[in-house]
Amino acid sequence: MPVNLTAPRAAELHAVAGLRIGIAMAGIRKANRKDLVVFALDEGSSAAGVFTRNRFCAAPVQLCREHLAAGSGIRALLINTGNANAGTGADGLARARRSCESLGRLIGVEPRQVLPFSTGVIMETLPIDRLEAGLPAAVGALKPDAWLDAAEGIMTTDTCPKAASRQVQIGGRTVTVTGIAKGAGMIRPDMATMLGFVATDAAIVPSALQALLHEAADASFNRITVDGDTSTNDSFVLVATQRAGHARIESLDSDEGRALRDAVVAVSVQLAQAIVRDGEGATKFITVRVEGGRDASECRRVAYAIAHSPLVKTAFFASDPNLGRILAAVGYAGIADLDQGMIDLHLDDVHVARQGGRHPEYREEQGQRVMKQAEITVRVHLHRGSASSEVWTCDLSHDYVSINADYRS
Amino acid sequence: MPVNLTAPRAAELHAVAGLRIGIAMAGIRKANRKDLVVFALDEGSSAAGVFTRNRFCAAPVQLCREHLAAGSGIRALLINTGNANAGTGADGLARARRSCESLGRLIGVEPRQVLPFSTGVIMETLPIDRLEAGLPAAVGALKPDAWLDAAEGIMTTDTCPKAASRQVQIGGRTVTVTGIAKGAGMIRPDMATMLGFVATDAAIVPSALQALLHEAADASFNRITVDGDTSTNDSFVLVATQRAGHARIESLDSDEGRALRDAVVAVSVQLAQAIVRDGEGATKFITVRVEGGRDASECRRVAYAIAHSPLVKTAFFASDPNLGRILAAVGYAGIADLDQGMIDLHLDDVHVARQGGRHPEYREEQGQRVMKQAEITVRVHLHRGSASSEVWTCDLSHDYVSINADYRS
Repeated sequence: MPVNLTAPRAAELHAVAGLRIGIAMAGIRKANRKDLVVFALDEGSSAAGVFTRNRFCAAPVQLCREHLAAGSGIRALLINTGNANAGTGADGLARARRSCESLGRLIGVEPRQVLPFSTGVIMETLPIDRLEAGLPAAVGALKPDAWLDAAEGIMTTDTCPKAASRQVQIGGRTVTVTGIAKGAGMIRPDMATMLGFVATDAAIVPSALQALLHEAADASFNRITVDGDTSTNDSFVLVATQRAGHARIESLDSDEGRALRDAVVAVSVQLAQAIVRDGEGATKFITVRVEGGRDASECRRVAYAIAHSPLVKTAFFASDPNLGRILAAVGYAGIADLDQGMIDLHLDDVHVARQGGRHPEYREEQGQRVMKQAEITVRVHLHRGSASSEVWTCDLSHDYVSINADYRS
Repeated sequence: MPVNLTAPRAAELHAVAGLRIGIAMAGIRKANRKDLVVFALDEGSSAAGVFTRNRFCAAPVQLCREHLAAGSGIRALLINTGNANAGTGADGLARARRSCESLGRLIGVEPRQVLPFSTGVIMETLPIDRLEAGLPAAVGALKPDAWLDAAEGIMTTDTCPKAASRQVQIGGRTVTVTGIAKGAGMIRPDMATMLGFVATDAAIVPSALQALLHEAADASFNRITVDGDTSTNDSFVLVATQRAGHARIESLDSDEGRALRDAVVAVSVQLAQAIVRDGEGATKFITVRVEGGRDASECRRVAYAIAHSPLVKTAFFASDPNLGRILAAVGYAGIADLDQGMIDLHLDDVHVARQGGRHPEYREEQGQRVMKQAEITVRVHLHRGSASSEVWTCDLSHDYVSINADYRS
């Protein structure tokens, strides 16, 4: 059961002018499930993307980089689930290329104007014939208001479709930002592929769109993983169809730029948190906030050390306030000159540790009370400076093991 | 159930001349269990130790470093289980100090000649009164042939006592090397405290003993964890009582030095592997060997990335040859210029991946067959150079979650 997360209603997800979505059941891995999604973008749309830093990046990721670099404009996204097309060598790359050619032919654009995405099992051959056979149905179904279907069509072990939408006024026009994401195991960065697609009809120059992409990723998807992107297929793409009719945004450092940024960040954060809430086996949503660091980078390092500790995560699962495990994680986060005698630890409003030791007034019942909640904030103060950072994670449960042991069966 | 590991028989564990062991039940955390172990060393013994690099190191670790640096000679080791005395601030340090004073008084040595060790729950107050009350019984029980009792007396979530012993001829004399270890969750370095104690009656100068300690640690305990030592309490101590009667070993680079080194390394490796075999919830013992790297360091980095991946470990638990997960781990190990098109992957004798993609002749049944074994070797070839490295790990099972969720109950 995801933590405080329910499927969005289709009516909440505003269509984005200049963008249509088509879904098909191509039987890529399993029959009778939506596993193929096509986004068609009107001419003049802009796109920006960030991708996994994994050196074993999947074939579609390699092609996304190539096609974005070509600068011919992006006219379509093609997403399949059921097969990651990663660890597939030169043959995998050829198959990904062929998928772009096939879609390009169907909708009359160049192959390099198509961005391909795959998610699913690694090191298995992409059944390109089935994918191609499904394309006409997906293209035939293209329509503006299929965001919820698309969210369902990119799921793997997700238990709940993830989508978010906002509208904001810019230059007297209503601008829409709508996005979907998938990913069900960001408990650790190597868990599962994360895909995020956010689209807006805002008019914005490519350089500002690129900057906005990085700001949004940094505030959202990069807060749920260590390296931001260690699966073979992780991708986050931001599309602007330029159709809203307001004066083009030249910089994020303007009223219009800030309004758009706030909306894009809000949608991205909601999607990223949804991934954690639906984390494989998750029963709790945990915010780890580290304050008093010399810089944000060391705060984030400490926060990740806590958020990744299987010992900490199993304690949360068990509602067991075995909170020394958090101090241990602080200690091995890699800050060479950390003074343990300065560390403060709070669990929500409960002051657990002071000056590196158990707080004299801390009582086990207080920790126990907070640990039983579905949403918990861990707050560590390093007393070394004024920087802070925050990451989101979930607990580690029996179901996590079951899901990953049985993933392919 | 540990993987191919059974309790040693007491008769297999040779006594070390100049060293006596006493065990008591002090009720530190639970009644009626051996939880206090004293090693008494004859005058003239030498000791060397390596300790956790965790900045939140436990009070006894701080004292060990202080007492070894004092150079007054080490005459006793004092080990308690049930409480880690970590995350306990200045009060914890005072209690650890008092434990050394109390034992020193009982056996007539200086407090700084005592090395203290604690393992168990973090951030709880060490019940020093109970520890002190148990000391006379432990001291009263001192005898040379209590190695198996000692192995039992330092267990926490271990299901099996861990001890190893070798004898070797040096300069016409029989030299004994005997050791014990504890640690049940080195699945990741932050799992649980690892304690290792190896003693020999060999005569060896302190500088060579120190070098031997580091060689042995590097070949054994440092191959089962990323940072070697990220728990708050990890400690590995090598003691030489100097009693065997051969000419003193001045350097490891001699026939005598090599003979002793081989014995100490063999005992240490057996102990380290025993920790993995008894890993929390382990059902499989996995050797990860990485070859063809530019240097041993990058090989080790890749090996650890594989050995730590929860996705890889759950696949092993499920006997599911979902081997692309291994390639993904290779990819995020942090080698910036890795060429995925060069990677080979073997599972025992099965050639799974070639040039970064699935081997054309690889069949699922072959992977399945190997995955069902209790002992498995993963071999990755990077084709970048001639260095190699090897680490040992176990799988991630339901029982791991159960053990860590219920640790304190």
